[in-house]
Amino acid sequence: MIALFLPKTSILDISIYQTAFLDYLHSQNIIKEPKNLYTPINYILQLGGKRIRPVLTLMVADIFSDNYTEALPAALAVETFHNFTLIHDDIMDDAPIRRGKKTVHKKWNLSTGILSGDAMLILAYQYFENYEPVIFQKLAKLFSKTALEVCDGQQLDIDFETKNNVTIDEYINMIRLKTSVLVATALKMGAIVAKAPEKEADLIYKYGLNLGIAFQLQDDFLDTFGDARTFGKQIGGDIIENKKTILYLKALELASNKDKKILLTLYNQKLEKNSDKIKEVTHIFTSLDIPNFIKQEIETYTQKAFDTLKSLSISSKNKKNLISFGINLMGREV
Amino acid sequence: MIALFLPKTSILDISIYQTAFLDYLHSQNIIKEPKNLYTPINYILQLGGKRIRPVLTLMVADIFSDNYTEALPAALAVETFHNFTLIHDDIMDDAPIRRGKKTVHKKWNLSTGILSGDAMLILAYQYFENYEPVIFQKLAKLFSKTALEVCDGQQLDIDFETKNNVTIDEYINMIRLKTSVLVATALKMGAIVAKAPEKEADLIYKYGLNLGIAFQLQDDFLDTFGDARTFGKQIGGDIIENKKTILYLKALELASNKDKKILLTLYNQKLEKNSDKIKEVTHIFTSLDIPNFIKQEIETYTQKAFDTLKSLSISSKNKKNLISFGINLMGREV
Repeated sequence: MIALFLPKTSILDISIYQTAFLDYLHSQNIIKEPKNLYTPINYILQLGGKRIRPVLTLMVADIFSDNYTEALPAALAVETFHNFTLIHDDIMDDAPIRRGKKTVHKKWNLSTGILSGDAMLILAYQYFENYEPVIFQKLAKLFSKTALEVCDGQQLDIDFETKNNVTIDEYINMIRLKTSVLVATALKMGAIVAKAPEKEADLIYKYGLNLGIAFQLQDDFLDTFGDARTFGKQIGGDIIENKKTILYLKALELASNKDKKILLTLYNQKLEKNSDKIKEVTHIFTSLDIPNFIKQEIETYTQKAFDTLKSLSISSKNKKNLISFGINLMGREV
Repeated sequence: MIALFLPKTSILDISIYQTAFLDYLHSQNIIKEPKNLYTPINYILQLGGKRIRPVLTLMVADIFSDNYTEALPAALAVETFHNFTLIHDDIMDDAPIRRGKKTVHKKWNLSTGILSGDAMLILAYQYFENYEPVIFQKLAKLFSKTALEVCDGQQLDIDFETKNNVTIDEYINMIRLKTSVLVATALKMGAIVAKAPEKEADLIYKYGLNLGIAFQLQDDFLDTFGDARTFGKQIGGDIIENKKTILYLKALELASNKDKKILLTLYNQKLEKNSDKIKEVTHIFTSLDIPNFIKQEIETYTQKAFDTLKSLSISSKNKKNLISFGINLMGREV
């Protein structure tokens, strides 16, 4: 586990936010007429997951105000948007399984997947209607900007599949858009609802952005070098799918002509049996010291995130909580 | 043409609004990075069409204020949303052609169709950011409500394909959601931007709702009984597609057991050559006096729309303009 090279701290108790969020989610009457539209929405929202994004919104609202429950509608908006992207991304990837259950377009059909997703994007905006006009506009503006960036990131991810010579900077920009901006926005929304000063809200955003990048890089790392028992996904999945992750891109940069040829050949194949391919690619990655390069990158972004906290005008207890959350997130214990 | 039974009035000059809208549309730099996401958005927005919805927004803003150009961002939001629904609906219908050109998912691919559509829905919300918080919230709230209703309508339309015994009330509710609420909203947004009293804005909405229903019923009528030269679509298209329009539903209600059997059989077939099917169905419709029933329905909804105008506190010249627009819309000359 990557967390080994990060200092262990006492685990922040986020279960209070998780429980508050789940109670709020269950109190919503999501299924209404026409049932064929809203049943799939309820299905994916109830599939579970760690609810990291809504927890972030509530946690930050708790830091900046004495009533984090006010942030519940914003938290629900973020979670609904996130699940909308899962439905539409699963169609684009033709993925059959999500969190151990059938994806929406497989359980129902393509039209249901598209339309339920569309409705969720609109529902996310509707949840902001719980706030007065000035807060509403701030939330909706940040949300639109972020949602569009997530679309940009998804498009870049698709573009990279057929693009040669993707640089590491381009890759990090892609994951920033596809993943990190939503983490950053989840945090900032908590600050907006709690009417925190704009400067504080922006710092919180920056914290989330860097933590989000670190988290995604760690996901890439664990996909190849993780422990199958704790990672929760099949080890080597990205190699099987020929995904041009930062591991692959850095390896191409450093490899000898011979290894480069082998990598390019292997990443052009879709095989029935992948154990040899995974072994060979992992061997090349290791021989090029890629794991250490990635670990350093993850540390750099994690440290950037924590550095941002220094400028925040919040209590040191709250700063410690945000650091503790970050560490536990990177330790994948949340 | 159905317009024959409506009184002809002088044609309202809407070209000033069309021109203003197109100038504004062309002044937007829609294509940005990643190009593969924004080029399809620009493509569908430039495909043309009569721009009825944005014209409605500008026309109403012109009635209630002395600066209709302020309504341009709202008009663009409505047109962008409308085109988003076209992209996603075309995927669901697997339609190859739209306005004589390839549909987005055929010209590019499924992922592009889904993702560009998603981005357009978000862009529509972003256009409201041109307004101050109170107007912004009013527009966004109305927009979210309407957008969700349009999804509801699309779902009902899909549901009806496999549902027997759809009633005429259910059918009209479906077209109200799928088509009319957006026409009504386009009008009301003009009133909101112009800061018209809420009562007036609501009446304008009601006018649009009834006119929109009349318009869609006329579309159903013309699809079977229109003139191919002026209708712009293939006559009999709904019959070929086995679409359960109001003509079909009313016919089933009135038909003898023998004709009912024939209709049910014909509407269960997908044929290579359809001229006999169209002839036979049209003959049954005519023998049951369906054209007159539909004409009466259209007149009822058109009259309801015009009646609403009576309660409006606007000049009689402006009322005449709205009536003139309605008549010309129903005469399909706009």
